Amino acid sequence: MFAPAVDEVYPGGEPQVRIHAGPMGERYEGATRPGHFDGVLTVVGKLLHLTRPGAALFGQKDAQQLALIRRMVTDLNFPVEIVAAPTVREPDGLALSSRNRYLSAAERDRALALSRALFAGRDARDGGPEAVRKAAEASLADADGIALDYLALIDPADFTEAAADHTGPAVLAVAATVGRTRLIDNIPLDFAAGEPEKPPESGAAA
Amino acid sequence: MFAPAVDEVYPGGEPQVRIHAGPMGERYEGATRPGHFDGVLTVVGKLLHLTRPGAALFGQKDAQQLALIRRMVTDLNFPVEIVAAPTVREPDGLALSSRNRYLSAAERDRALALSRALFAGRDARDGGPEAVRKAAEASLADADGIALDYLALIDPADFTEAAADHTGPAVLAVAATVGRTRLIDNIPLDFAAGEPEKPPESGAAA
Repeated sequence: MFAPAVDEVYPGGEPQVRIHAGPMGERYEGATRPGHFDGVLTVVGKLLHLTRPGAALFGQKDAQQLALIRRMVTDLNFPVEIVAAPTVREPDGLALSSRNRYLSAAERDRALALSRALFAGRDARDGGPEAVRKAAEASLADADGIALDYLALIDPADFTEAAADHTGPAVLAVAATVGRTRLIDNIPLDFAAGEPEKPPESGAAA
Repeated sequence: MFAPAVDEVYPGGEPQVRIHAGPMGERYEGATRPGHFDGVLTVVGKLLHLTRPGAALFGQKDAQQLALIRRMVTDLNFPVEIVAAPTVREPDGLALSSRNRYLSAAERDRALALSRALFAGRDARDGGPEAVRKAAEASLADADGIALDYLALIDPADFTEAAADHTGPAVLAVAATVGRTRLIDNIPLDFAAGEPEKPPESGAAA
């Protein structure tokens, strides 16, 4: 295990030269935490230099962090492969998070609306981006007792809202407060190129 | 020779994630060129990742760039040794620069005031930082036909003005416009710890 002392990670004290996340760090999770992703990327950059791995794993659960680290690696030509570690879920769908322990039993139950909305969106994938958005929104509209921050279908390349004709990888992401606990969750999707599949003609499935 | 194609250096197009020079990039040369050192550090960071050298040389002539690259390497833990390449000078003291070709013969003559001031400062080093500053200023006061931007004794660790009791490495730097050409020059100095040498008692040199 690499467990460096403070002096090894911060030989010059608090960094003056830092990595700046840019516009991708100002949206979604960055909107409520100014400078947060600058700090994340600066520390990740330091650790990559200290350990020089061939590959580094980051959790899909923090989708914006993962997207920004990928972007940093591309934009600054870091010689490392970034690998996404899939989100682990409870059998009922709740994404594992250290924050789940702050949830009462009733709040935990209400929190299931988040993953349920993501699964509803995923199940509508063959209908294209708009169908995914609508299915997830419809699912969340039935949820009680959660304060939604955002539900968005996002292009992970630049962490902007995916266009209606988006193809390739996307992230359906949600953030909400349940009781006093803010939760985030997301599900990666892939939209094939070409026309979204049309609903079957009436009678075609008969 | 490593002469990469644009696509190799910019695989994601214009970088969104960039290296930010911070306050060290806003002073002296940075004061007149906002964002300049962010661009320098971003490109140098990219090239260090692409080439992964054990050591990299940068010219002392661009003292602030050199100091910022050293700071970047420390602050972001780049696994590379930065080596300063000494400034090369004409026999009369003029620092070699691609800009010298813009100088007329008369301007080139006036430009010698810059290196002359630096040498005057260097020769006063044993008197300490204040003696260096005064000697360089006195030399420049005699100069005709140059528009001084700054003359400063600088701590290269953070590129701020060196204190009167500064010890260790310092950079005596000057920037001025001669005719229509802006020139910079500097000379590295080292101030030993302990009391600056006192001028000899009258008669002691007899």
